[in-house]
Amino acid sequence: HASLGANARFARSHHTRVGGLVLIKNPHLDTMEEDILYHLDLGTRTHNLPAMFGDIKFVCVGGSPNRMKAFAQFMHKELGLEGSGEDLADICAGTDRYAMYRTGPVLSISHGMGIPSISIMLHELIKLLHHAKCRDVTIIRIGTSGGLGIEAGSVVITDTAVDASFQPRFEQVVLGDVVVRSTDLDRDLAEELLACSKEVPDFPTLIGHTMCTYDFYEGQGRLDGALCSFSSEKKLEYLKRAHEAGVRNIEMESTAFAAMCGLCGLKAAVVCVALLDRLEGDQIRAPREVLREYQQRPQRLIAAFIRRRLGLHPPAGPALPSSN
Amino acid sequence: HASLGANARFARSHHTRVGGLVLIKNPHLDTMEEDILYHLDLGTRTHNLPAMFGDIKFVCVGGSPNRMKAFAQFMHKELGLEGSGEDLADICAGTDRYAMYRTGPVLSISHGMGIPSISIMLHELIKLLHHAKCRDVTIIRIGTSGGLGIEAGSVVITDTAVDASFQPRFEQVVLGDVVVRSTDLDRDLAEELLACSKEVPDFPTLIGHTMCTYDFYEGQGRLDGALCSFSSEKKLEYLKRAHEAGVRNIEMESTAFAAMCGLCGLKAAVVCVALLDRLEGDQIRAPREVLREYQQRPQRLIAAFIRRRLGLHPPAGPALPSSN
Repeated sequence: HASLGANARFARSHHTRVGGLVLIKNPHLDTMEEDILYHLDLGTRTHNLPAMFGDIKFVCVGGSPNRMKAFAQFMHKELGLEGSGEDLADICAGTDRYAMYRTGPVLSISHGMGIPSISIMLHELIKLLHHAKCRDVTIIRIGTSGGLGIEAGSVVITDTAVDASFQPRFEQVVLGDVVVRSTDLDRDLAEELLACSKEVPDFPTLIGHTMCTYDFYEGQGRLDGALCSFSSEKKLEYLKRAHEAGVRNIEMESTAFAAMCGLCGLKAAVVCVALLDRLEGDQIRAPREVLREYQQRPQRLIAAFIRRRLGLHPPAGPALPSSN
Repeated sequence: HASLGANARFARSHHTRVGGLVLIKNPHLDTMEEDILYHLDLGTRTHNLPAMFGDIKFVCVGGSPNRMKAFAQFMHKELGLEGSGEDLADICAGTDRYAMYRTGPVLSISHGMGIPSISIMLHELIKLLHHAKCRDVTIIRIGTSGGLGIEAGSVVITDTAVDASFQPRFEQVVLGDVVVRSTDLDRDLAEELLACSKEVPDFPTLIGHTMCTYDFYEGQGRLDGALCSFSSEKKLEYLKRAHEAGVRNIEMESTAFAAMCGLCGLKAAVVCVALLDRLEGDQIRAPREVLREYQQRPQRLIAAFIRRRLGLHPPAGPALPSSN
C-alpha cells in the first residue's frame, strides 16, 4: 500500500495546477441564453449546474450504465462517505440515453458503445463542466477491450490511442470535410496510474497503445460476425501488425475521447481491462463471474488513484466493487 | 382506415415471397460449435433460438431501450393479444448493452446511438435470425432525427440513406482498409409504408433521403457543441446543400443499417420523426410531452403497417403508445 509520503506528493502535484478551467472551443456558446444538454436531460435554465457540479474533480466514463452505477457505489465506500451508497440517484433519470451518478468529488457517467455515442456524451459533459465552472478536472475512461498478446484480465493504461491504421489520429467530419485531430493523452497521468497499480497487485497492469475501431466485428478482424470476407490467416496477419506497432488492446472509443478531451484542456486517461486475447480467439467465452471480476479491475485501480490524489488511506476492509 | 381489400392484397404480396432465409455472408460461422451473441446475452448452446424466435416476421429497432419497450407494449395491444403487455420481459436482461422484447411475430430491440452501436447489435441480431431459421423477415428502424426544411413532428420514410457528402454509400473499415457498400433500401416497402400513413392522418409523412453522420454536433453542423469551428453562414450553406441533394432528415444509423440489412437479404426500411427543423435551429427545445408524442408517430405508422400485413383491422379504441 502507498506510503503517506506518496499520497502527500500526489496531493501536492494536483494542487499546484491552478486555473484549470475547461476550454470550450466554441465562440457561439456564450451568445446562447439557455443551453439544453438534451441527451443528459440537464440545462442551464432548469438546473443550477455550478451548485450541482462545481466541486467535481474526477470524471469517470464507461460504456455500461450498470457498471458506472456500480463504480459510483464502490467509490462512495472507498471515499469513506456516509451511508452505503446503494441509493445514489441517476442524475440523468429523465432520459435513458446515458446514466450519471456522483459521490464526493467523483462523477460517473455511461457513454454507450462506439465513437458517435461517446462523442455526444462528451460534448454535453464538457459543456456541463464549463457551465458549472469546474476546475482541475481529471477524466478517465474505464472500459473493456480485446487484448493483443496479453493475458485475459490484464489492465491496459493507454499511452497513445491509434486508429485502424495504427496512426495516432482521429478523423472528424465537419460540414462534410475531414478534419484530423491529435489523440495525445496525458503522459504524466498514465505514469501516475501505473504507479498506483502497485497498490492493486493481484492483476497485471501495463502501458501500451490502444487501437480504436468503428465496429466490433469486421473492424476488429473478427471471424464470427454476420459478415466476414477474410481468412483466419489475413486476420492474424493484421492483428500481428497491430501488435508490432505497439497496440496492446482494441476498443471503440479512445481516439475520439483523447481528441475531444485534449482540445478542451482536460487531463485524460484510458484504462481498459482485456476480456480475452484476440490472438487466441474472437468470442468472449469466459464465465459471467470471471468477466464481472475483470470489469472491476479498472475500477479498483482508479479508486486507488483517486484515494492517493485526495491523500486518503485505503479502507481497511476488502476493496471490491459490487457485482455489475 | 384500410379496407379489407387492401389488407388482403398486402397479406398476399407478403406470403408469395417464399424462401426468404437470412443470408449470412460468413463462411466461418458454420464451422463454429457454439455462437455466443455476447452483447445480447444469448447463445446457440444456452438458448433454443429456433423455439424462441423462429416465427418472428417483423423486427423493429430504435435507439432508446425505454422507447423500444413502449413500442412492444403498444404492438401487443394493437395485435389484440391477451393481457395488457405491461409485463413483457427484456429478453436481454442479462446485459444492459441492448434491450429486446417480443410480442406475437414482432421483435423490438434497442440499438443505442451511432453506427458502431447499431452495427454490433445488427451483427448479433442477424446471426440470431439465421440460427433461429426465421423466414421473410421485414426489419424497420423507427427513430428520431433532425428535419431539414420540414415541420417538426413530420415522419420521414427513407428512400436512400446518404453519408455526410450526400452519397448513397457506407464506408466500412475491414482489416484497416476501407470497403464501400451500397445503402439501398427496399423501394416497395417504402411505398407500402407511405400508403399505410394514410391510416394515421394526424401528422405529415413523406419520403426523402436521410443523411447519416458520425456525430450529433460538428458532423451535423450544430453551433451548440463543446467544439465548433464554423460560422452560422457556413452551417446553413451546408444544410441547404444537403436539402438541395434531397436530404429531408439527419440521423446517425441509417447508412450502416441499410448496408448490413441489404447484404444479408433483409427487406429494410427507416422511419424517423423529425424533432425539429435544423434550418430553424440546433437545440431540441420542444417540451418533453410534445417530444414524447412525436416519438410515438413512427410507432403508430409501423403498427398500422404490421396490422395490414397481418390482415388485422385497426383496434376500436384510440391507438396511442404508452408514454416513453
